[in-house]
Amino acid sequence: MSAHAPHRFKAVFQTFEDLADGAAGPARLAALRGALAARGLDGYVVPRADAHQNEYVPPCEERLAWLTGFTGSAGMLVVLKDRTALFVDGRYTLQAPAQVDTGAYEVVPLADMRPEEWLATHLPKGARMGFDPWRTTLDGRARLARAAEQAQATLLAAPDDPVAAIWTDRPAPPCAPIRLQDLAIAGEDSSAKLRIVREEMERQKLDGLLLSDPHCTAWLFNIRGADVAHTPLPLAWCIVPREGKADLFVEEAKLPAHVAHALAPFAGIHPVSALQPHLAQFAEGRTIRVDAATAPVALADIISAAGGTAQKGEDVITHLKAVKNPAEIAGMRAAHLRDGVALVRFLAWFDSESGKGTLTEIDVVEALETFRRDTGELRDVSFPTIAGAGENGAIVHYRVTRATNRALHPHELFLLDSGAQYPDGTTDVTRTMAVGTPTADMRRHYTLVLKGHLALGAAIFPQGATGAQLDPLARQFLWAAGLDFAHGTGHGVGAGLSVHEGPARISQLGHVPLKAGMILSNEPGYYRTGAYGIRIENLLLVEPRTVEGAEKPCLGFGTLTLAPYDRRLIDTALLTPAERAMVDAYHLRIRLEVGPLVEDGSAREWLHQATAPL
Amino acid sequence: MSAHAPHRFKAVFQTFEDLADGAAGPARLAALRGALAARGLDGYVVPRADAHQNEYVPPCEERLAWLTGFTGSAGMLVVLKDRTALFVDGRYTLQAPAQVDTGAYEVVPLADMRPEEWLATHLPKGARMGFDPWRTTLDGRARLARAAEQAQATLLAAPDDPVAAIWTDRPAPPCAPIRLQDLAIAGEDSSAKLRIVREEMERQKLDGLLLSDPHCTAWLFNIRGADVAHTPLPLAWCIVPREGKADLFVEEAKLPAHVAHALAPFAGIHPVSALQPHLAQFAEGRTIRVDAATAPVALADIISAAGGTAQKGEDVITHLKAVKNPAEIAGMRAAHLRDGVALVRFLAWFDSESGKGTLTEIDVVEALETFRRDTGELRDVSFPTIAGAGENGAIVHYRVTRATNRALHPHELFLLDSGAQYPDGTTDVTRTMAVGTPTADMRRHYTLVLKGHLALGAAIFPQGATGAQLDPLARQFLWAAGLDFAHGTGHGVGAGLSVHEGPARISQLGHVPLKAGMILSNEPGYYRTGAYGIRIENLLLVEPRTVEGAEKPCLGFGTLTLAPYDRRLIDTALLTPAERAMVDAYHLRIRLEVGPLVEDGSAREWLHQATAPL
Repeated sequence: MSAHAPHRFKAVFQTFEDLADGAAGPARLAALRGALAARGLDGYVVPRADAHQNEYVPPCEERLAWLTGFTGSAGMLVVLKDRTALFVDGRYTLQAPAQVDTGAYEVVPLADMRPEEWLATHLPKGARMGFDPWRTTLDGRARLARAAEQAQATLLAAPDDPVAAIWTDRPAPPCAPIRLQDLAIAGEDSSAKLRIVREEMERQKLDGLLLSDPHCTAWLFNIRGADVAHTPLPLAWCIVPREGKADLFVEEAKLPAHVAHALAPFAGIHPVSALQPHLAQFAEGRTIRVDAATAPVALADIISAAGGTAQKGEDVITHLKAVKNPAEIAGMRAAHLRDGVALVRFLAWFDSESGKGTLTEIDVVEALETFRRDTGELRDVSFPTIAGAGENGAIVHYRVTRATNRALHPHELFLLDSGAQYPDGTTDVTRTMAVGTPTADMRRHYTLVLKGHLALGAAIFPQGATGAQLDPLARQFLWAAGLDFAHGTGHGVGAGLSVHEGPARISQLGHVPLKAGMILSNEPGYYRTGAYGIRIENLLLVEPRTVEGAEKPCLGFGTLTLAPYDRRLIDTALLTPAERAMVDAYHLRIRLEVGPLVEDGSAREWLHQATAPL
Repeated sequence: MSAHAPHRFKAVFQTFEDLADGAAGPARLAALRGALAARGLDGYVVPRADAHQNEYVPPCEERLAWLTGFTGSAGMLVVLKDRTALFVDGRYTLQAPAQVDTGAYEVVPLADMRPEEWLATHLPKGARMGFDPWRTTLDGRARLARAAEQAQATLLAAPDDPVAAIWTDRPAPPCAPIRLQDLAIAGEDSSAKLRIVREEMERQKLDGLLLSDPHCTAWLFNIRGADVAHTPLPLAWCIVPREGKADLFVEEAKLPAHVAHALAPFAGIHPVSALQPHLAQFAEGRTIRVDAATAPVALADIISAAGGTAQKGEDVITHLKAVKNPAEIAGMRAAHLRDGVALVRFLAWFDSESGKGTLTEIDVVEALETFRRDTGELRDVSFPTIAGAGENGAIVHYRVTRATNRALHPHELFLLDSGAQYPDGTTDVTRTMAVGTPTADMRRHYTLVLKGHLALGAAIFPQGATGAQLDPLARQFLWAAGLDFAHGTGHGVGAGLSVHEGPARISQLGHVPLKAGMILSNEPGYYRTGAYGIRIENLLLVEPRTVEGAEKPCLGFGTLTLAPYDRRLIDTALLTPAERAMVDAYHLRIRLEVGPLVEDGSAREWLHQATAPL
């Protein structure tokens, strides 16, 4: 069997099935209306959210998909007695109507109207409008309350979960075993982490933290789990007091004895059912930080009812976790070197196979995952691979299914955005490749994107500069050509955690100053609807930079990702000598660092050609 | 008398006297404490503000200066029974302690502590803390209220103005006559302006506008006045209902009969004393927009008390006024051409005189104003000229006084930031000039600033882009050298109004999208403390740009300012060919447009040399 035969490839960490089942929508809507009537409610809001506002939610929390058939990663359903509205963002305005029974569920693009505006208009005067106190944040409730007030209606937390009441075949909650992260990878033990968390609590005059974001709990205790897809997340809650042990609330079945033993010095361990009474008891007279982004109303209300102060703000751990320590950085580097070998092998294979006209998007996803699995270290993909041939590449959040899968044709572009979860780190990389000979327009557009990507990667900036200030550097060349891209340039990335991590980001909304040790993506793009998509993404590490004559501490970026750009797509006439030198230096680095680890001779030969000076 | 003899020069629109009189501070503080005690108050806040939150306030509103001696353009005094704090920003941390009796008034840099934090700490429990409801905005009151709540104190509007009560020699309110702006300069008459204002009110569902910003009233009625320095502002209030005539509240003595006659079709005219009863009567049952940035608490409270809704938000006229119409643009162009002639004559004179070692900063200010007055059209300077030789140039908001005045020495830089108010437009320009031979460092720093200035001026960007997105383009070259400047890159500029105008600006805080017709400054800088300051400033007009292949409407900048950069300070080795071509094209434009209007032969000869290709 040839090493490159597509049939040896398979994807085990992602599916190409369309799991939507919109046919049951009308019956489930009727059942929900019955459950609401039984509770004296005239309306109800179902967000695409779990109690932690996770990006990936376990199957038992896919309420929106179960009710409507819509499987997008964000959305909100509003059900009134005589009408419904499913609000979706720009990514899903085509997908949602195709998945749901639009006779039962009216799909409303968020760009046209926000749920609050819709409610303010459509909620009957005097109506009793329910919301889910476990899947709604404080800000979310405030928005709904304002809308209800405008409509002269009443907003109230729905008593005993109406969706759960009718969801008879609801999957069980996930119960994946929790493992300890090696200290060699975590870099700091829980006692050290608790110490800096408490210094921050002291500074901010907080008596306690309610950790509603499980990423923060995972970071604090150096634990990982598998309760949701693509992120090694253990679902759990935690209360951190200013002094003494923390309290960790997690299903006992998930905790192997040695893990429980390791945690015991730092945290009392309790079942999740103990969270509410525990929090009520702890809260009295205390000021407790509740995370504005993730904390459910239900828990904030418990604090207030118990005579405590639920101080809405940013989770202090989010800020600490974003700055990676030397061990985490070393792990991320190792993960990217390993990923680089898989990517070089993959790209070599892709070049030899993609021009034949038979390869499909799914074939490519399966091959890439297989090359990564060949490293022997792949734990998961860090998100479902975006593999868009031709016009599919122009759909920014495209996910290939059996229905949309198509073959790659010559003279097309192919956009591939993917990532891996390794034990020591998380990767996220996008490359856009030419299939056959690209057109002059494709090369020009690719080069404009590349120039922005290089400008951002080479930026030097003073400590205190924010992602919002860096974002335009990646857009300036597209802007000058009358082009742009409708997404942020970069997001934070977790170390062996979520591939999307706050609080810093490189976008117009990135108001957090970058700090040395943060890891962010650099992924400008250009999307020609109906024709092709271009995106180039590397992960960057924020590093101190020594600049002669500098008057303030400076920062810059080191590149973690190691994969060649497609030289056939670079129009060197559009590059300055400095840009050309940057590409050559990056390619040389890949040749020197990744090359020796590529065992396959043909892939090594490919790498040699792919990394020759422009 | 030689045309260039310094003694023919004088400045009539600005003073070099230091008007501060801190000696009376302790006695006035004691009197204020007496007035507070008589009103049952334990503390009081005195902001540097008038009832319109104007940048320039009339002498009768210089409360902070009268009390303390501090003459800065921003600041806030907090007086408690046993201590005081005068909060000043970074511009004034040196000036304030020099002006006030620090035994009576403790100067606190805002960077160290905000007034709210200070109050939360120092306000005694149970204290009655007064504020001035006419000189405090709604947001300002909310900040004070939170501080009082934290201190378990009570915040209340002080009954009958305690400062006015002790200020026995208080100047009379200004009473400058109001004039009508020519329609040829205003471009649109009040009926057309009222129509678009009302379309906006309709769109935003507003029953009325309270115009607390006199700039908005001046724009709406095409009137100008002279109640404050450097801005042709008539102090006035206005109520604009959705239908029918507006109501204008202005001292009758300021309105010549022909002006009153011209306004009559659009507005009922009332004395200022009629504002409160009028507003109360109008407010009942109505939703009235009150400007978050300028409206005093006193008026917002009248609306609420009368059963109306004081809807805090942005003044709708601020947004309309920022987009200049063709007549305003033509006026601004004419003003800049005229200013260009004065600047060329001035720069030629400066070059011949500055190396002699006798010229002082004040001489330069007087000369520049005189060359501008020679145009026969100068109405005022648009702000007190900033003229900083050597180390004085590094003080960003330096204003020369008899005490700080110094001679220009060879091998120094001289920073000159100035502007003119002409009947048809407002200018604001900064040039940095070499005196004698500059050092290599000076040239390098100047060129880095110039590169940013050129990059911003040449930017093309999609409609919807904000000033925050453009600001980094002006910083990138300084950043790469480990340098930066601690102010925004640009502010909006009024057409024959204030030289600082909202809502758009080019800075990290510039969240308003730029629109064609807006005018903004482009003024990056670099300041080497104790050595020299560099700033290069042009005014830019936002214009539509046609870009081949553009997918969205594009904008760019046209340059209004016409004055050569100092070629001796440009290190051409640091410029790209494109940057060099930009400078050459700009200089050629000045030669062609301004040159023919320069009558003086030696100035024309200077211009020829100054605008030769680099």
